[in-house]
Amino acid sequence: MAILVINAGSSSVKFTLFNADGKTVQAAGIVERIGFDGTRLKYRNREGRAYDQLVSVADADQAVGTILAALTHPARGAIRSIQEIVAVGHRVVHGGESLNRPTVIDDQVKSIISEYCRLAPLHNPPNLAGIEAGARHIPNAVQVAVFDTAFHATIPRHAFLYALPLHFYTEDRIRRYGFHGISHKYVSEEAARFLRLPVDGLRMITCHLGNGCSMTAVKEGRSIDTSMGFTPLEGLVMGTRCGDIDPAAVLHLMEHHRLSPAVMSDLLNKQSGLLALAGIGSNDLRDVIAAAEGGNPAAGVALDIFCYRIRKYIGAFTAAMGGLEVLVFTAGIGENSPEVRHRVCAGLDASDGFGIVLDSGKNARTSGQTRAIQAEASRVKILVVPTNEELEIARETLQILAG
Amino acid sequence: MAILVINAGSSSVKFTLFNADGKTVQAAGIVERIGFDGTRLKYRNREGRAYDQLVSVADADQAVGTILAALTHPARGAIRSIQEIVAVGHRVVHGGESLNRPTVIDDQVKSIISEYCRLAPLHNPPNLAGIEAGARHIPNAVQVAVFDTAFHATIPRHAFLYALPLHFYTEDRIRRYGFHGISHKYVSEEAARFLRLPVDGLRMITCHLGNGCSMTAVKEGRSIDTSMGFTPLEGLVMGTRCGDIDPAAVLHLMEHHRLSPAVMSDLLNKQSGLLALAGIGSNDLRDVIAAAEGGNPAAGVALDIFCYRIRKYIGAFTAAMGGLEVLVFTAGIGENSPEVRHRVCAGLDASDGFGIVLDSGKNARTSGQTRAIQAEASRVKILVVPTNEELEIARETLQILAG
Repeated sequence: MAILVINAGSSSVKFTLFNADGKTVQAAGIVERIGFDGTRLKYRNREGRAYDQLVSVADADQAVGTILAALTHPARGAIRSIQEIVAVGHRVVHGGESLNRPTVIDDQVKSIISEYCRLAPLHNPPNLAGIEAGARHIPNAVQVAVFDTAFHATIPRHAFLYALPLHFYTEDRIRRYGFHGISHKYVSEEAARFLRLPVDGLRMITCHLGNGCSMTAVKEGRSIDTSMGFTPLEGLVMGTRCGDIDPAAVLHLMEHHRLSPAVMSDLLNKQSGLLALAGIGSNDLRDVIAAAEGGNPAAGVALDIFCYRIRKYIGAFTAAMGGLEVLVFTAGIGENSPEVRHRVCAGLDASDGFGIVLDSGKNARTSGQTRAIQAEASRVKILVVPTNEELEIARETLQILAG
Repeated sequence: MAILVINAGSSSVKFTLFNADGKTVQAAGIVERIGFDGTRLKYRNREGRAYDQLVSVADADQAVGTILAALTHPARGAIRSIQEIVAVGHRVVHGGESLNRPTVIDDQVKSIISEYCRLAPLHNPPNLAGIEAGARHIPNAVQVAVFDTAFHATIPRHAFLYALPLHFYTEDRIRRYGFHGISHKYVSEEAARFLRLPVDGLRMITCHLGNGCSMTAVKEGRSIDTSMGFTPLEGLVMGTRCGDIDPAAVLHLMEHHRLSPAVMSDLLNKQSGLLALAGIGSNDLRDVIAAAEGGNPAAGVALDIFCYRIRKYIGAFTAAMGGLEVLVFTAGIGENSPEVRHRVCAGLDASDGFGIVLDSGKNARTSGQTRAIQAEASRVKILVVPTNEELEIARETLQILAG
């Protein structure tokens, strides 16, 4: 018995095969560059046997076929037969307002996910293709959708509504949805578990800092506000996304340079953020930090802005909750950049203020484990929690099976 | 000797005549509905003699002529001759990056203000018309421009730069400028004076809440961040402006409803905010509060959103400064709405948190004076400071004359 987690993107399908306990990884990998030259399958099983080979894959359906062939490979596979897979958990980015918990996929659910393609045109269509492929190749397994928006379904109206004419909400569905919910949920629960404290009494801020970045205010285990909004563009500065900006600046640029909404969207989503600010041809924060340390002033400013915006959201969400007990860093940058954590927390250490004090030694160390990095004097616990969205999806899929 | 302060808008010219001390008001008023039916001069002198009469005025030049006739009226005027006016202080909204202090107006200054019309198309053109009128009618007076952006010239790069390709800053001048600077400067200085504390040691947040709303983080007397951005659209929810919003939501609406940048700009600036959320046909917060108290749920949500956004900025700016000593409320709503002040501060009272505790009795009282409304247990001083932009302009004009 096994559970397969599928995360189907626009040009890749990621997969993780779990034991039926929903915890132990039997195999994992990715088919990447689908639709481009050099499509590859990267695969690693529990014993560490690895593939990395060119494959002939044109779409999500073929990708899932290739993945299943690898998983059932007599020598290097993880299972003997596809029949062992009892459930497939699919990451779906946008569940809108109606799909706000893990859901067994039927035609109606597919049609709702399809409806939300308008709200998430880059994500929901490939997610749907992954679902179709899963259902076709593993027809006996239960197909479950786990939504990246679902954790944010608890955000109250005063935090999710924009100050626009109401028909833009009721008819056009414009509101703050929030994303990275699977990760924010996972790390907030892992943080409470690590601290051995009931999540009910905790006010947490979770900082998911990867190539996409978002922060969530988690009060008593529930998301009450988050930095991403109608789309993943709002909020923090990211690798290639601008984050918060005066909407009038966007309109001014469109008018002055005669840019269409599509061109402007591309510019704000793909040509902005750290990539634009640092001007070193990279959207990778590690490169930006290296350039800043090498004396590149633009890279230094990019790093300053990146960290300053995070600090402002720590303040905003602490005010939203009236206080803070736990600050969590996760994802590529959050887990691996002592520099960013240091800059974010700098100046928030006053005991009659935020009370966020890093232990510089603990902050500098790295490990793949959940760990506390605050100083003894810190009122707020500061944790590094490695995120694991696949594990969370497997867990929620298992709960559906059990329930 | 007298100083005349002129605030020329798109359909009105406000004026205040001060004694040469720059403090005592001799007369004040407004010519309103210029260019519409029913253009009126409202005028009141120091003794309280008042006019309110229809006038024949088609533009700023004629408005200034009418104002000067009123000021020199033998019976109800305030001065005997125009010659007594030694200086005219003009409010100018946008001084860009180069005009960042009060400035004697010459042809070069006029040409720079004119250049910034592109950045403030609704404000700088009428401001310029007021300057031309002042110079023509009072040729012997020194004409001084005082800029609404100038106080924010100290905002550091990491807080004023958006995460866009850098040429949008260097060539298109897209950045956070901030507005209401004359008011934020005035009330922050008045707060320090009232508290008898040197401004150098203080971290303040000033909340200018009128029909336009903005907040400023004032550290050691200098603005280090503010909620308005490239234009007055960004930041808080206002009477008719949406404030912060996912830029992708704006692009989505433009694409879906085929709206031009100009139409979208009008929608976000003039048909959003409290007007849109409450849906009671009024952008006046007093009406919204009354409707909310009468059980209108949309008005209740509008009020919730309005106050919640202010609370988030209090948190963000406290984090930006690393702490807070003084919170200032000013302008129509800030000075006169105990309800808003109460809701904004609610939940920020923890002594090991923000330490912002209102005294409900002091908060409920009204007066036209600067006053403290925090409880004894409050770590942060909470002040209501009546703003006085005219006085600030007169003061800065006088400093130019003296210097």
